[in-house]
Amino acid sequence: MKIAFQGEPGAYSEQAVFEYFGKVETQPCESFEEVFSAVRSGGCDSALIPIENSLAGSIHQNYDLLLRHDLHIVGEHFLRVRHCLIALPGVKKSDIKKAISHPQALGQCDAYLRKHGIKAEQVYDTAGSVKMLKESGSRDTAAIASRRAAEIYKMKIVEEGIEDNSENYTRFLAIAREAVQPKAEAKTSIVFTLRNEPGALFKALSVFALRDIDLTKIESRPLQGKPWEYLFYIDFIGAAQEEIARRALDHLGEYAAMLRVLGSYPRYKG
Amino acid sequence: MKIAFQGEPGAYSEQAVFEYFGKVETQPCESFEEVFSAVRSGGCDSALIPIENSLAGSIHQNYDLLLRHDLHIVGEHFLRVRHCLIALPGVKKSDIKKAISHPQALGQCDAYLRKHGIKAEQVYDTAGSVKMLKESGSRDTAAIASRRAAEIYKMKIVEEGIEDNSENYTRFLAIAREAVQPKAEAKTSIVFTLRNEPGALFKALSVFALRDIDLTKIESRPLQGKPWEYLFYIDFIGAAQEEIARRALDHLGEYAAMLRVLGSYPRYKG
Repeated sequence: MKIAFQGEPGAYSEQAVFEYFGKVETQPCESFEEVFSAVRSGGCDSALIPIENSLAGSIHQNYDLLLRHDLHIVGEHFLRVRHCLIALPGVKKSDIKKAISHPQALGQCDAYLRKHGIKAEQVYDTAGSVKMLKESGSRDTAAIASRRAAEIYKMKIVEEGIEDNSENYTRFLAIAREAVQPKAEAKTSIVFTLRNEPGALFKALSVFALRDIDLTKIESRPLQGKPWEYLFYIDFIGAAQEEIARRALDHLGEYAAMLRVLGSYPRYKG
Repeated sequence: MKIAFQGEPGAYSEQAVFEYFGKVETQPCESFEEVFSAVRSGGCDSALIPIENSLAGSIHQNYDLLLRHDLHIVGEHFLRVRHCLIALPGVKKSDIKKAISHPQALGQCDAYLRKHGIKAEQVYDTAGSVKMLKESGSRDTAAIASRRAAEIYKMKIVEEGIEDNSENYTRFLAIAREAVQPKAEAKTSIVFTLRNEPGALFKALSVFALRDIDLTKIESRPLQGKPWEYLFYIDFIGAAQEEIARRALDHLGEYAAMLRVLGSYPRYKG
């Protein structure tokens, strides 16, 4: 098994890959676009992409890529994000004047950094910030990244769990070329467009509400070339193959201008 | 009148300020946070913030700031975004090997840049990229920004309208300390949370659908500290003071754990 993820070795996405798939070979990719291509081309068996963070919200680019690529969602995983303050061996916390990391990680440690008078500077990646720090040899700078990133680059963890809010989780989706038919409790992700008329979204949601199907997420994205019209992404409990979901999707087809099932997959159990 | 906007002089937001408010004094701010503070403190009378682009989607940070600050939405404006390829005087298109700009502007000119073999490099701001280019004196580099940014820095517009998709509009919201009561055709923006139970969003939308109130936008954002629960932002046609909207909001109050009217304001007329 070879699994693609976005980022440098030691990225949170790579940690999620090991938690979800176990001991597998990983393929670091520069961009999410590259991750999707790696699976599409057959170079990788599957990939794990972040789709939403409990503090920062959805990763919209991946919603757009799910629509553009003909791949299937085959699983989900939730990762607890714990940020580490990482420095060169021998550096003390009081030496640190500046922290480098991805803007989202910096934002999630904002109160901690301000409390300790540490200036934030944005770089492109969390694990990449550890690599950059190691190469620079700077002793007044720390990186913010995962425990694993510190271990890979043989750096010192000055402090672990420096995020301001401990309710920091990222939801990942596993994607593959072939769909799965989950046996146990399932979740289904769909995308659709509606005619631009009053009550359209209400009617669309009615197909689930009238059948007591529980929605876990709704997201809207702009429809390219049609200003102020939207694509809707919905996750609901159940597999698309089950009678009740089949009927709901059939009903939704009456209102939707476009409707696609992105995948049914086993629900994350923790 | 003094109006705050985010970005450097010549930013698209500043162009929107002049289109919407006419001849006013402008206050450039480094961050959206600073824009909200400038209005809150009374240093500025109002501000214009981008809330959604027809290609890239919502500017989620501003949804979060609308919730955190006790300000009112008092108007909206739509700006047609036309990107210019900007260089030092005397530079020819064939000299240009690299383009610098905000990631979103670069993304919107992606096909154009690839067609001309121009490499993209991200910087923090569109108008700021023109300033940086002028200071560097580089003759193989272009900036991508507004016509106005080129004029302010006395630079050459090599080509205008280089965006890949001409349906490129940004919706702006005017915010102020005092609410307005629109007389003409109005729009209202609200934010609410729901109890996490099946059919909750369906019930919330029913209060509008049952009264034939037209929704123009729905957006969800994570509820801080409650993973996988959401804030919903909705825009609908009508003023909150009108009988029908008053009844709908009253009805929504039965389902909503929190409900706030962010403002009713005259609808953009083009």
